[in-house]
Amino acid sequence: MAQRWTLARSSRDVGRFVQQARRRRGLSQAALADELGLTRQYVSEVESGADNLYITRLFEIFDELGIDVRLEERGADGKG
Amino acid sequence: MAQRWTLARSSRDVGRFVQQARRRRGLSQAALADELGLTRQYVSEVESGADNLYITRLFEIFDELGIDVRLEERGADGKG
Repeated sequence: MAQRWTLARSSRDVGRFVQQARRRRGLSQAALADELGLTRQYVSEVESGADNLYITRLFEIFDELGIDVRLEERGADGKG
Repeated sequence: MAQRWTLARSSRDVGRFVQQARRRRGLSQAALADELGLTRQYVSEVESGADNLYITRLFEIFDELGIDVRLEERGADGKG
């Protein structure tokens, strides 16, 4: 079963995770786009790791797919 | 001591966390901007939660400040 979390270091990592989460919910790109008032083309660009994506738009997609974004300072848990 | 991780739901949350991480490293906005070839104005916009920020640029800032981005599907750990 695909992992339900990932450490993202690039828009490509973000796109791959969005695609997995969308598929797990049985949504097509078009269905997700409709829910958010976006174009299917835009969802496809997000999933292929386009780097000209605004963070606010991504938060809308994350919220729709139930994805939490946890920011953590490396070494914050003492492991260094 | 300020928390070293946060659940971000908006660019405002992201900006606040970037500011905390920058300050913990004793960096001024100008110093962080110089390290990344950005303007101080841009760093200031990021920290005040501007919503027209590209995700790729944010990843550069996260990397410079040692911030990990963990994406997780809500309820993935079974707690639901």
